[in-house]
Amino acid sequence: MKLAGIGELPLVEKLRDRFSRKKTGVLLGIGDDAAVIRPSGLPLLITTDMMVEGVHFDFSYATPYQVGYKLVSVNVSDVYAMGGTPQYLLLDFGAPGTMELKSFTRLFDGVEAAMKLYGVSLVGGDVSSAGELVLSGAVIGYGKKALRRAGARAGDRIYVTGNLGDSACGLALLKSMKKPVEIEKGKKALLPPLSWKVIRPLITRHLMPTAVRPGRFADTASAMMDISDGLLIDLSRLCRESGVGALLYEEGIPVSDALREASAQLRKDPLDFAFAGGEDYELLFTSPRSSVAGAFCVGEITGQGMIMQDRRGRLRKISAKGYRHFGVQD
Amino acid sequence: MKLAGIGELPLVEKLRDRFSRKKTGVLLGIGDDAAVIRPSGLPLLITTDMMVEGVHFDFSYATPYQVGYKLVSVNVSDVYAMGGTPQYLLLDFGAPGTMELKSFTRLFDGVEAAMKLYGVSLVGGDVSSAGELVLSGAVIGYGKKALRRAGARAGDRIYVTGNLGDSACGLALLKSMKKPVEIEKGKKALLPPLSWKVIRPLITRHLMPTAVRPGRFADTASAMMDISDGLLIDLSRLCRESGVGALLYEEGIPVSDALREASAQLRKDPLDFAFAGGEDYELLFTSPRSSVAGAFCVGEITGQGMIMQDRRGRLRKISAKGYRHFGVQD
Repeated sequence: MKLAGIGELPLVEKLRDRFSRKKTGVLLGIGDDAAVIRPSGLPLLITTDMMVEGVHFDFSYATPYQVGYKLVSVNVSDVYAMGGTPQYLLLDFGAPGTMELKSFTRLFDGVEAAMKLYGVSLVGGDVSSAGELVLSGAVIGYGKKALRRAGARAGDRIYVTGNLGDSACGLALLKSMKKPVEIEKGKKALLPPLSWKVIRPLITRHLMPTAVRPGRFADTASAMMDISDGLLIDLSRLCRESGVGALLYEEGIPVSDALREASAQLRKDPLDFAFAGGEDYELLFTSPRSSVAGAFCVGEITGQGMIMQDRRGRLRKISAKGYRHFGVQD
Repeated sequence: MKLAGIGELPLVEKLRDRFSRKKTGVLLGIGDDAAVIRPSGLPLLITTDMMVEGVHFDFSYATPYQVGYKLVSVNVSDVYAMGGTPQYLLLDFGAPGTMELKSFTRLFDGVEAAMKLYGVSLVGGDVSSAGELVLSGAVIGYGKKALRRAGARAGDRIYVTGNLGDSACGLALLKSMKKPVEIEKGKKALLPPLSWKVIRPLITRHLMPTAVRPGRFADTASAMMDISDGLLIDLSRLCRESGVGALLYEEGIPVSDALREASAQLRKDPLDFAFAGGEDYELLFTSPRSSVAGAFCVGEITGQGMIMQDRRGRLRKISAKGYRHFGVQD
């Protein structure tokens, strides 16, 4: 059965019934003109991100479940990146009438799974027909102190919370495989000679990224953001907002064994994925501390400019032009 | 110059520069991972509405300015409908790369004009390419007491805050005229034999609706909502949420002279527009008071069922089936 055969109102009813359970603080959830939330006394964090079929994802390699899951993760990641706690989700859904009800349901299965993971509650949304699938999410959360991109100081170390480049490499693999893999149902896929053990973590990082809780990182960070467009471009943003520069250690960039193995197969430098691939959804932060447990030091904040120190100790300027393309330019 | 020739980042920069002025309470606006808002101590009202080209509007009869203006109005209307005060706006913007920068700018001119009217501040958003223009707005506001759709009691009177049907009739006129009218620049258009005096208020109500502030209506209302899908369907929702019925007086429905005149020309019953046209964005509320200054009494709340009393005093059942189509069925 297709969405066009059902109509907007029954679809909204389905969502209302499904997401009617209210968490603490929700005085009124889905179904009225607006949701009503009890005030918490903490500063509000508000963010929004959209995902458009053919731009942010493609059903030639992603399932509706994964798309729904990812929408929640990318929005939650922005609240975590401020050192906050996500609480409430809004979701606008536009899709062609030819979309199957089953796909609609699976997309919201993915949304629900991610909501449970992060402890957020769906409090409102809108449903419309559209030429392609268009999702717009907004997350509202709380944060005692908001960790901005501004705040890094010369001498601070630069940290990331996990391996970089997996997501971008996973996307490259998915585009080679040219079919969706229902990892959420435990399904596997092969791309010889790469084993599932190599493929799985990479495509999972792309299809169903998990936002990183700031936890103890927030206590030590002087500036923080999440990595969505790639380490280089996002670090350059943090530096611009803070009015500082950066020296990156190529050697310090954490990359997974899976990324190394798959990159070799794709004849790519794993660091290209790590520097400019994007959609890592790891946290990038600066701290005056010389080490932070659970995070990887990838460089240090300087007065100005962006410099890379390669494995042999050579220094190279990181060109701003390089941010929007793959790799680092001299 | 087209959006594709500019790229996402410069567009975001333009918006950031333009909407950087922060209102009270905004600790951090556009440009970081999330906006930060000082807590107010009042309950939060949160709502979202999307508008899709070809579904909610069409550039064959609407200008980008009008579309931007309307997006803000329809979202603000939902906060007003809870008896609240809108404060903060999020806006996700998706458009084809072929869209002209001039249209993008004009759309945000419309957004800005409406923001000023309502006193809301843009605190976040996202920009993406998309197959058609897709806008997703979210508004966050405050409300001391939230006026729900539930709350109407048998014996309450039913009120609306203004003329109904103008917007739907305006849309019918626009579809006949088949060209946009830049009413925001004082431009006029004719559709003989109708005069501009008749056309102007009708198409303005459709293209640039103004949300109605609840003001004193909130003090007396037992239940409230805004009329977006038409009086009949929206009243039926209010009744369902309140667990009551309604008796509508056909005679009490406020319709404008412009609507009467244009309807005659279109060979339509003005009441068809008023009952089922939609997009009026007037407030619909119930109150135990026998009269409310500035509002029109259109009926009374009963125990159950929905009944219409026509001008001759005859009673007719309002069929639920009729809500989604034009007019009232026996």
